[in-house]
Amino acid sequence: MKTYINPKPEQWNELAKRKTVATDDLNETVRTIFNDIKKNGSKAVEKYTHYFDGVTIANIEVKPSEIENAAAVIPSDLKEAIQIATENITKFHIAQKEIPTKIETTSGVYCWRESRAIDTIGIYIPGGTAPLFSSVLMLAIPAKIAGCKNIILCSPPDKNGNINPAILYAAQLTGVTKIYKVGGIQAIAAMTLGTDEIPIVSKLFGPGNQYVTAAKQYAQQLGLANDLPAGPSELLVIADSSCDPEFVASDLLSQAEHGDDSQVILVSNSEEIITKVKLAIENQKTILPRQKTVEKALENSRALVFEDIQTAIAFSNFYAPEHLILAVEDAENKIDLIQNAGSVFIGNYSCESAGDYASGTNHTLPTNGYAKNYSGVSLDSFVKKITFQKLTSKGIQNLGPTIELMAAAEQLDAHKNAVSIRLKKLQNG
Amino acid sequence: MKTYINPKPEQWNELAKRKTVATDDLNETVRTIFNDIKKNGSKAVEKYTHYFDGVTIANIEVKPSEIENAAAVIPSDLKEAIQIATENITKFHIAQKEIPTKIETTSGVYCWRESRAIDTIGIYIPGGTAPLFSSVLMLAIPAKIAGCKNIILCSPPDKNGNINPAILYAAQLTGVTKIYKVGGIQAIAAMTLGTDEIPIVSKLFGPGNQYVTAAKQYAQQLGLANDLPAGPSELLVIADSSCDPEFVASDLLSQAEHGDDSQVILVSNSEEIITKVKLAIENQKTILPRQKTVEKALENSRALVFEDIQTAIAFSNFYAPEHLILAVEDAENKIDLIQNAGSVFIGNYSCESAGDYASGTNHTLPTNGYAKNYSGVSLDSFVKKITFQKLTSKGIQNLGPTIELMAAAEQLDAHKNAVSIRLKKLQNG
Repeated sequence: MKTYINPKPEQWNELAKRKTVATDDLNETVRTIFNDIKKNGSKAVEKYTHYFDGVTIANIEVKPSEIENAAAVIPSDLKEAIQIATENITKFHIAQKEIPTKIETTSGVYCWRESRAIDTIGIYIPGGTAPLFSSVLMLAIPAKIAGCKNIILCSPPDKNGNINPAILYAAQLTGVTKIYKVGGIQAIAAMTLGTDEIPIVSKLFGPGNQYVTAAKQYAQQLGLANDLPAGPSELLVIADSSCDPEFVASDLLSQAEHGDDSQVILVSNSEEIITKVKLAIENQKTILPRQKTVEKALENSRALVFEDIQTAIAFSNFYAPEHLILAVEDAENKIDLIQNAGSVFIGNYSCESAGDYASGTNHTLPTNGYAKNYSGVSLDSFVKKITFQKLTSKGIQNLGPTIELMAAAEQLDAHKNAVSIRLKKLQNG
Repeated sequence: MKTYINPKPEQWNELAKRKTVATDDLNETVRTIFNDIKKNGSKAVEKYTHYFDGVTIANIEVKPSEIENAAAVIPSDLKEAIQIATENITKFHIAQKEIPTKIETTSGVYCWRESRAIDTIGIYIPGGTAPLFSSVLMLAIPAKIAGCKNIILCSPPDKNGNINPAILYAAQLTGVTKIYKVGGIQAIAAMTLGTDEIPIVSKLFGPGNQYVTAAKQYAQQLGLANDLPAGPSELLVIADSSCDPEFVASDLLSQAEHGDDSQVILVSNSEEIITKVKLAIENQKTILPRQKTVEKALENSRALVFEDIQTAIAFSNFYAPEHLILAVEDAENKIDLIQNAGSVFIGNYSCESAGDYASGTNHTLPTNGYAKNYSGVSLDSFVKKITFQKLTSKGIQNLGPTIELMAAAEQLDAHKNAVSIRLKKLQNG
């Protein structure tokens, strides 16, 4: 973790760089698997599951008995924790429901918006040693609140053909409709094209490795929507002398343990704070089971000293971090200056893990600078907002001449005529 | 416009097909132009303007004097119409502002969302004979309300090196920051990569031909966001015996005049209505200046008869039209059944042209079935919603154990430690 003192704006571009992952080489593999599944359906899915996950599964749909068994092995304290997180995530997302308001823009002209759930969505949850059941909560809870009819979940099976019980438990608790033991490119392809087992979805959600990312990009080209463009997870911490260096170190480490390609940026107005945090990192990391990953991630990471917190915030806006911790004095009064970030954690007790699991905000957030032009996942991600309008006979009489003039000026005579014909009939009748 | 009587669900897929435009051949051209502009900046932009628009322009930025001159040539009645439309569009979009609500999910844990404008956006407005100044209103007005600092507009110059005065007038009225005389792929490339004249934007808006569409797709791969996946414009009308066949015909024709690839679908529970509407189309189209375009578009178009209006609506949801007119009895009470549509026009006096120009709703809408998973442009399109959270010391004490349990179950020890270290210090202090 190299330290930079007062880097000039010309250097900011370089300092805001993320480690990029090339997906070009994967595109050929993605296309091959999609074409195979388009042609051969379930048989092809089975083939790739055997090839990539090393297991052959007779029935890829998870049975109710498997879900019951999963629930039985989850310790009751973890169940309780999942329940509390579920309640918080529900509270936060249910408050995002929009109440339609009719606006009478011109007398007799009524306009409004209403939300409709996306009918069928697909959630991808990676496998591996760490079962990301928290992502199940973050995606299935708002999907259910939105009213999505079909909530499909795919996750790769382990060597014994099972999905981790915590994932099954979270899925069942949050109302996932169907769970399939399929992972990787073949899962995304199956949800994009449909098979005799897996239905076609309209939008794909969830994290994944570079194969899943490349597959989701290809699915988008075929007409599906995606939650967000994917990228490695990242955290920027702005810390001044009011911070607790040990807390800051623990937050940076919690981000760094996500993966070798994670990035953490520490920004301060004090070199001393940076020295202290670095020391705390050295002390804390020794006991972490994922120490190797942490060290890899710290190689992509930077510490920056700026003259003042305002410049530090300006750099943060330039970087546009997925997660931003404000460990500075009077932090809450500085949030108006925050322009680009996925989720912001205010003050010394707001650790990133709170938002990752249980505070209620969503942890599916824009990475890789996308916080400049994308929002994180919210209830909005699971609905479309349809505009409605109703013109009364008075309404068209009031607004008609305006429309006629504009349509004529755009040389769209049929557009004008659609109004004229109505005005004429009203005049005559 | 072929008529289908009671088509079976198995046929719906075929009947919902749009004319697809292949963009694969264009990708090579797009890449070449992007690479050239990346390397040679403004000089390359100038070269392509000369090549595609047949004109060499010394200064591509529109000068204040040009805007003043434009305002002088716009007839005062058209100015007034633009003013009324501007007011209505403003009223509808300003009502979409979200007031942040703090939710206390657990005692001492506060979560909320705040909107921040996307700093710099780019609007593309096509050239040609019909100046689409209405699209300037639909994109620049919400951008201004959102608070976008830089609203960049590119539009191709005509043979004399000018942009249509109505476009310049609308841009000036709505607060566009900079206007450039650049069109096509080179405009999108310049806004994506930046030149010494044109700034880099974060999100691209606006209609365009297949070249612009392919360029916007490529820009997205390079990290920009787009308003919507593009496709030809389309209208579906559901009409029963309460409709006025002449009105319906005028609406179908107004959609059909957009382009050869436009599509109109007429759906009814009565063959008689379809016969009447078709007759009215024949009568009305003869006087239209764009008759050839209309006839081409009608070739891609269909009339469908279903047993009842409920099945008609089911088909409409399956088709997911950009524009939907409900010319049926008791139309407003049927809108709960509408699941997939961009914008809905209710009753006999709500013609599509109203929404195209002046009712207040946005006319930038999802086409090509994308109404299943995308919303049209709204104030939301110009902002990101950032989540904020603040945990007090009590908050982390209340929620901490929940986070620790979940992090441990996901085998993310550093995530757990970020909580534990805080709880320990609070316990000791």
